[in-house]
Amino acid sequence: MPPALLRARDMIEPALRESIRDLAPDIQRVVGYHLGFSDAEGQPVAGEGGKAVRPALALLSAEAAGAPADVGIPGAVAVELVHNFSLLHDDVMDHDLERRHRPTAWALFGMGQAIVTGDALMVLAQRVLMEPATPEHSSAAAALARATAGMIEGQAQDLSFQSRLDVSVDECERMSANKTGALLSCASSIGAILAGAGDLEVASLAEFGLHLGLAFQAIDDWLGIWGRPALTGKPVAGDIREQKKTLPVVIALAAGGPDSDRLRELLSNGGLSEAQVSMAADLVERCGGSERTRTEAGRHLALALGALDRAPLALPAREQLEEIARFVTARDF
Amino acid sequence: MPPALLRARDMIEPALRESIRDLAPDIQRVVGYHLGFSDAEGQPVAGEGGKAVRPALALLSAEAAGAPADVGIPGAVAVELVHNFSLLHDDVMDHDLERRHRPTAWALFGMGQAIVTGDALMVLAQRVLMEPATPEHSSAAAALARATAGMIEGQAQDLSFQSRLDVSVDECERMSANKTGALLSCASSIGAILAGAGDLEVASLAEFGLHLGLAFQAIDDWLGIWGRPALTGKPVAGDIREQKKTLPVVIALAAGGPDSDRLRELLSNGGLSEAQVSMAADLVERCGGSERTRTEAGRHLALALGALDRAPLALPAREQLEEIARFVTARDF
Repeated sequence: MPPALLRARDMIEPALRESIRDLAPDIQRVVGYHLGFSDAEGQPVAGEGGKAVRPALALLSAEAAGAPADVGIPGAVAVELVHNFSLLHDDVMDHDLERRHRPTAWALFGMGQAIVTGDALMVLAQRVLMEPATPEHSSAAAALARATAGMIEGQAQDLSFQSRLDVSVDECERMSANKTGALLSCASSIGAILAGAGDLEVASLAEFGLHLGLAFQAIDDWLGIWGRPALTGKPVAGDIREQKKTLPVVIALAAGGPDSDRLRELLSNGGLSEAQVSMAADLVERCGGSERTRTEAGRHLALALGALDRAPLALPAREQLEEIARFVTARDF
Repeated sequence: MPPALLRARDMIEPALRESIRDLAPDIQRVVGYHLGFSDAEGQPVAGEGGKAVRPALALLSAEAAGAPADVGIPGAVAVELVHNFSLLHDDVMDHDLERRHRPTAWALFGMGQAIVTGDALMVLAQRVLMEPATPEHSSAAAALARATAGMIEGQAQDLSFQSRLDVSVDECERMSANKTGALLSCASSIGAILAGAGDLEVASLAEFGLHLGLAFQAIDDWLGIWGRPALTGKPVAGDIREQKKTLPVVIALAAGGPDSDRLRELLSNGGLSEAQVSMAADLVERCGGSERTRTEAGRHLALALGALDRAPLALPAREQLEEIARFVTARDF
C-alpha cells in the first residue's frame, strides 16, 4: 500500500472520531459499527477501517498546492463522511447484506436506523467545513455540496438503469462521472481549495480526480462480471445476475449484431438461471464489452495523470497522487 | 387561513420550482409528485401543496428584522426543502402509505427512489444558501445545517423509542425539540439571519420557533390518540396502535399507580387488539396523559409568544408571527 494511504489513515482517524463524538448515541452506535470502530454491541474493535483513498487525496491536494497536509484535514474528514453516507444508503437501496465481510448496517440495525444514520453523516460533512467561516471553508463547503449532489444524481440514474435496456454508453459514463467521479474529483481538490490555491491548480486536481473515478469505476464494472470471487468478495458475474447496466453490458448492448441481439433478449427476461448468467457474460465479452471496458479504464487513467501536468503542483505530493492513482486502478484486472 | 400563509405560498412556489429545475429527471419526477406539482405520470396538477408554514415564518422573520420579505426567500426555500427531505425519508422509515390523501412517494416510486430523492433535497437545501457566499448566507447555511442535524437526531431518537417502555417525559420533550422544534426554530429566524439582524432578534425569533414546535408537537401527539379521524385523516388512537411513545403515553407511563402499571403491561405485548388499543387510550387519559399534554401545548404556545417580546421586532410581521402561531396550534383540540 502506498505510504500516502497509510499516513492518511493515521492522520484522519482521530479527526474522524472527533467529528462523530457529538452525534446522538443511537446514531453513533451505527456509525461506529459502519466505520469499523466497534462491533454490533458497540464494543471497540481494532479494525483496519477502509482504505482511506479519499482522505489521502484530500491531504495530498493540500500539499500539492504548497500547504501542509493538515490544512486538508477538514476536507478529508468531510469527503470520508459523504462517502460513508452514500455507502449506508446504497446498501439499503441495493439490499446488500454484506460489506467488508460483515453484515451491512441496515441488515444489523434495521433500515430506519441505516437511513437516518446516513442522513446524519451527510449533514455532519457539511458542518465540518462550516467553522470557521473563512472564504476557503465556504468554497470547500460549496464544492462538497456540488459533489454530493452529483453523487446522488448518479445513484438515481443507476437505479433507473436497472429497468432499462436502452442505456447508451454516453449515459453510462455520465452516470459514473456523477456516482463515482464527482466525489473523487472533490476529494482530489478540496485540500487545495482549503489551501487557497489558484483556479488552475484546483481545476487540474479536480480533473485528475474525475478521470481517476471513471477509471476506477470501469475497473469495478469489469470486476463485477469477470473478477475472481476470492479477490472481489462477490460472486462471479454478480452484476449480470442483478441486471446492472454497467459499462461492459452497455457497450455490448450498443454493439449491434446477432450476439448483441441475443444478449438483449436474454436480459429482457426477469430472473436469469445460472446458465443464462454465464451465457450473458460470454455474450458481453464477445461483443467487446470486456476489452473496450479495459481500454476505457486505461484511457481515463492516462487522462487523470495528464491532468496533473496542467498546473504547477508541488512535489512530492504530485508523485504521490500518481502513485495512488496507479494503486487503486491496479486491481486484479 | 392567515394572509401571511397565503402570501408565503404565492411567493415561495416560483422559487421552489426554480430550485428543483436542475435536478436529474428521475429525481425531479419524484420531487414534483411529492410536492404536489404533478401526478404519478409527471403531468402537472393544480394542487394546493402544503400549508407553507415554514416558508411563511422565514419570510416574516426577515420582515420582523426590518428587511423586505424577499430577503428571506432563499431561507424559505431551504427550510421547505429540508422539511420535504424529512417527509420523504420518514414515510419510508415509518412504512406510511398515504400522505395528504395520496400514496406516499416510496409507495409509488419504490423505496430506493424515495431515499435518493430525499438525499437530493437535503443537499439542494444547503446549496440554495451557498451562493452568493456572503457572511449572511454562510450564517444561514450554518443555522440550517445545525437544525437539520437536530431534526435527524430527533428522528433517530423517535425510532429508538418504539421499542422502549422507559422513555422519560424529559427525553420525550428533548426528542420533540429536535424532531419538530429545530427546523421550526430555524425557519422562524433564518430570514432575520439573512437580513443581518442582531443576535437578540435572531435569538428571540429562534426561541419563538422552538416553543411553537413543541406546542405543535404536543397537539399532534394529542390528536394522534384522541383526534377525530374525519379531521386528522388518521385512525383513532393510531399512535397507540403503532406503539409510539408520544407525550401523552410517556406522561401516563411515568405517572405511577395501578392504571399506569396496567398500561405498561398492555403496551409490553406486541400487536394490540382493537379492544386493547381502546383500553390503552382510556388508561392514558385516566393517568392524566390527555390533560397534561394539553397543558404542555398551552404552556409552550405562551412561551413562544413571550419570546417575541424579548427583542424589538418590526410590525406588522411580529403580529403575523403570532397569528400563525395561534393558527397552527388551534387545531381541533
